[in-house]
Amino acid sequence: MKTQYYTATSLDGFIATVDDSLDWLFPLGDVADTSYSSFIRDVGAIAMGSSTYEWMVRNVVGPEAQKREPWPYEQPVWVFTTRSLPSTEGADIRFVEGDVRPVHREMRAAAGGKNVWVVGGGDLVGQFHDHGLLDEIIVQIGSVTLGSGKPLLPRMITDPSLRLVSVQQIGPGFAELRYEVPRRAEAPGAADR
Amino acid sequence: MKTQYYTATSLDGFIATVDDSLDWLFPLGDVADTSYSSFIRDVGAIAMGSSTYEWMVRNVVGPEAQKREPWPYEQPVWVFTTRSLPSTEGADIRFVEGDVRPVHREMRAAAGGKNVWVVGGGDLVGQFHDHGLLDEIIVQIGSVTLGSGKPLLPRMITDPSLRLVSVQQIGPGFAELRYEVPRRAEAPGAADR
Repeated sequence: MKTQYYTATSLDGFIATVDDSLDWLFPLGDVADTSYSSFIRDVGAIAMGSSTYEWMVRNVVGPEAQKREPWPYEQPVWVFTTRSLPSTEGADIRFVEGDVRPVHREMRAAAGGKNVWVVGGGDLVGQFHDHGLLDEIIVQIGSVTLGSGKPLLPRMITDPSLRLVSVQQIGPGFAELRYEVPRRAEAPGAADR
Repeated sequence: MKTQYYTATSLDGFIATVDDSLDWLFPLGDVADTSYSSFIRDVGAIAMGSSTYEWMVRNVVGPEAQKREPWPYEQPVWVFTTRSLPSTEGADIRFVEGDVRPVHREMRAAAGGKNVWVVGGGDLVGQFHDHGLLDEIIVQIGSVTLGSGKPLLPRMITDPSLRLVSVQQIGPGFAELRYEVPRRAEAPGAADR
């Protein structure tokens, strides 16, 4: 039961352009060739930020979507937002705000032993990491640079560093890198508990 | 005879911290385990920006360096700078400024059939790319995020995208990704030449 950040990024570390476009991403490869289908099978609860949810509404499930599709997740989804957002038909969505810790506890309980997926954005993932709640980072690095945009993970994580577990090439368009996020050194006395 | 960008970067696309520190980089692995020794053997000319050169002076070859070492390159080095910088003993350095194109021609001529290495920073590499002079990008992605810093390559390169050629894991600390930089579509009539 892990908490995972699974996302695509540009080589220079942006998950979307400044105006939240992913148009650069889709020409790079077919999701069917990636680890996504095996990844999502083990996910029991999903968290995302308001921009990510709004992207889904605008581009996938909402009336403005060019090629409208049903909501893609069977799992319950917690959307972090301080604003009022539209609900989506056929989606199990809970709008929440504030501290990620109590929400994470609720998500773990709901996940039924499966993993928790933090979809993004980067700052929401950073909040989970700030509280030692992030276990894995799985990134598909797309073969582009964007020069500017929404950051992958706006945190300094160097001590301890991440631990690269595997690398895999997916055609000319993607490299998939898997990282474990080591726990920080325990506080003095923690071993006595 | 290629023009190459060979560098290390953080997972989130920074080649150095805001204050040009690489202290996060060295604990991640041993340069002896990387492709560097075979890479540098095929390099005949080197270009770098002023910040990169000043980092070398401050941290490697200059009197302030903690563990002073000799200048590491046998190849001639072109340093792009608009300021006056100190020379380095035992180094073949030419200080240049302005348009990269005539300098690139000079470098190719001097390289004797070997490759041209643009060490960095990111914007200097971007200038070579702007003029269609960049052939390959070889990045060692270190297992850290920095959150901010000096950008890997501050350009949008999506059309055409880069072409991922190979991926290689180097322990838990690095993934090495190699990209070809495709030429933009030829101008009409170019095929007639």
